[in-house]
Amino acid sequence: MAVGDVTMPQMHVVKGVKIGSTEAYVRYQNRRDLVIFEFAEGSNVAGVFTQNAFCAAPVHVSKAHLQLANPRYLVINTGNANAGTGKIGMANAEATCAKLAELAGVSKTEILPFSTGVIGEQLPLARLLTGLQPALNTLKDDAWLDAATGIMTTDTLPKGASEQFELDGITYTMTGISKGAGMIRPNMATMLGYVATDVPISRELVQQLLKTTVNVSFNRITIDGDTSTNDSCIFVATGQAGGTEITSVDDARYTVVLDVLTRVMKRLAQLIVRDGEGATKFMTVAVEGGADTQECCDIAYSIAHSPLVKTAFFASDPNWGRILAAIGYAGVTNLDVEKIQVWLDDVQICKDGGAAADYTEEAGARVMSQAEITIRVDLGRGQAKDTVYTCDLSYDYVKINADYRS
Amino acid sequence: MAVGDVTMPQMHVVKGVKIGSTEAYVRYQNRRDLVIFEFAEGSNVAGVFTQNAFCAAPVHVSKAHLQLANPRYLVINTGNANAGTGKIGMANAEATCAKLAELAGVSKTEILPFSTGVIGEQLPLARLLTGLQPALNTLKDDAWLDAATGIMTTDTLPKGASEQFELDGITYTMTGISKGAGMIRPNMATMLGYVATDVPISRELVQQLLKTTVNVSFNRITIDGDTSTNDSCIFVATGQAGGTEITSVDDARYTVVLDVLTRVMKRLAQLIVRDGEGATKFMTVAVEGGADTQECCDIAYSIAHSPLVKTAFFASDPNWGRILAAIGYAGVTNLDVEKIQVWLDDVQICKDGGAAADYTEEAGARVMSQAEITIRVDLGRGQAKDTVYTCDLSYDYVKINADYRS
Repeated sequence: MAVGDVTMPQMHVVKGVKIGSTEAYVRYQNRRDLVIFEFAEGSNVAGVFTQNAFCAAPVHVSKAHLQLANPRYLVINTGNANAGTGKIGMANAEATCAKLAELAGVSKTEILPFSTGVIGEQLPLARLLTGLQPALNTLKDDAWLDAATGIMTTDTLPKGASEQFELDGITYTMTGISKGAGMIRPNMATMLGYVATDVPISRELVQQLLKTTVNVSFNRITIDGDTSTNDSCIFVATGQAGGTEITSVDDARYTVVLDVLTRVMKRLAQLIVRDGEGATKFMTVAVEGGADTQECCDIAYSIAHSPLVKTAFFASDPNWGRILAAIGYAGVTNLDVEKIQVWLDDVQICKDGGAAADYTEEAGARVMSQAEITIRVDLGRGQAKDTVYTCDLSYDYVKINADYRS
Repeated sequence: MAVGDVTMPQMHVVKGVKIGSTEAYVRYQNRRDLVIFEFAEGSNVAGVFTQNAFCAAPVHVSKAHLQLANPRYLVINTGNANAGTGKIGMANAEATCAKLAELAGVSKTEILPFSTGVIGEQLPLARLLTGLQPALNTLKDDAWLDAATGIMTTDTLPKGASEQFELDGITYTMTGISKGAGMIRPNMATMLGYVATDVPISRELVQQLLKTTVNVSFNRITIDGDTSTNDSCIFVATGQAGGTEITSVDDARYTVVLDVLTRVMKRLAQLIVRDGEGATKFMTVAVEGGADTQECCDIAYSIAHSPLVKTAFFASDPNWGRILAAIGYAGVTNLDVEKIQVWLDDVQICKDGGAAADYTEEAGARVMSQAEITIRVDLGRGQAKDTVYTCDLSYDYVKINADYRS
């Protein structure tokens, strides 16, 4: 069961984006499992992809195509990750693009393929190709919920975020979807994110906006520390709502777009954690007072990855010894433990590296009973800070990952 | 329940080592919780300690004392880790040494203190000091089992290893004990190891032997990736069985001692994994064909730490996709995935980076049904290799760590 507010908002239409989907029977019956995005000509598209050395065939193809052209179509299947599939997998990803290019009348390199699902099995290519025309037939602008549902694997709910905002008298929209509930699912792979806006933005700035916001959202979440073979996030600016193109970070509108995109990306990333496998608590790990951002990030991840911290939160046990130990083994040099403060929300549990004198079990228990908790750490050695989002480790995590066999 | 053969062997007496123990009521009633080692004058002692920045007070004191003198006594309590206890904790560790020094008639710096148990509470110093004389009163050479039992926290069984061997017509003994079952226990801390031999060895070589063997034993195990505040391992050579002192690695006897110590240390380390929290399987992760040892170690730990790999083994699911993904995110650069082979014991599950063509579910299921499994990975890019030992991740791990509240 997902943690906290995970409702789909009203998914505003983005001008210049159409979405089609169908049941292609990739793995399961009676479910939407093939989604196509169509972007208006002139759209600028950026992508970021998994760092895993075993990245999937569609990731290789998408990265190559992105270098060559501005994509007009995305084609996404669920049920099969097309990862660990060798040369046949590459050929299948290319064949999917080629067929869609033929049907849509564009170049093959203007198509990016994405797959999520079981690793190590070949795509059922014939069924996938057969599904392309039916999916194209359903293209419409008001289908973001269909897309969010169509890319789910074992997610318990579709994930979306959407905002409208005004710049120089024009109303623009930023809408996105994501999927994922473990860094890797049982056999199922991973995190996908697609965000679109109708603001006109240069391709260079689209890339910069994506990189900047991924680093505070999708690159700051962890469920089990496992990085998938298929992680991908795409941001597109269609420019179809009018206005002049943003081509400089000094343009006042850039800051507004950055703010909106940051909120949308954080929401999409946090929804993945809220729907984390077996999650019963949503934890924000905020580390401040660091000498630099990297050490704050390292310590935040050390806490967020610790199975002992995660089980303590599942048990509602305000076990500060485990948090201190995780800080201590993060590999940060010359840490002065006597300067370290730790809070759970507003309750200080650790003062100057030891138990806080005025801490009471009652105060700790009050915070730990909540479904959402912030662990705040002050390192007392600088001004840098960073934040990571995670969930607890429950029986159900083991159950989901041990029992699952598709 | 521990995995595989975990029986205590016959614990041979080490000449020059006496062991005393008592019930000091540190935390629990009716259990031996205070252990003292006495080493003959002239013994050479080496120690290695946790890298955690939050290391416990006794670790600070032991490291300092080791610099100043060759220890004559070790004093070990269980039930309280004396970690996260600030200046009072340091004073308590020093006071324990001072009192034992007075009773035993040696210098305070000739004593090393060790604590394991709950983090963040002060030692019950009066009870501990009261227990010192009763423990001294029981000193005898044939008490290794008492020591192994006396240092347990939530270990389900005492852990020991012992060998006898002959060098130049003299029979020598190597005997050791260890404790630990998670890298950190719930609140309880961690891994301790004490190994003694009556071979005469120079202090410099005692240190070198310890460092070399720790790197293939205690530094190559993981249960949950959490590094404790109190990890310590001590090796002592009393020289009391006679013969000339080994002062050079070129002495033929050095190699024999290194071999024996390696076996004893590996056994003591592996016993900790076999008794891992909730463990149902013992896994050896052997990575070969690497460009250097570090990358083999990194990949072995990446596999051994992966919650998805560990739950798959708990479920007896030969899920090679999870193993490949863990190899892929280990951070090793320029990995050619098409050169990677993976075996479970003698069954090849992954060939040239993809599913092995002749792999069958039956063959995989046969290996996965075993309690002990070797995951062997060949990176196909060099001659280096390294091995890490771990266990699976079960419901009971979560249960032990979530439910535990001392």
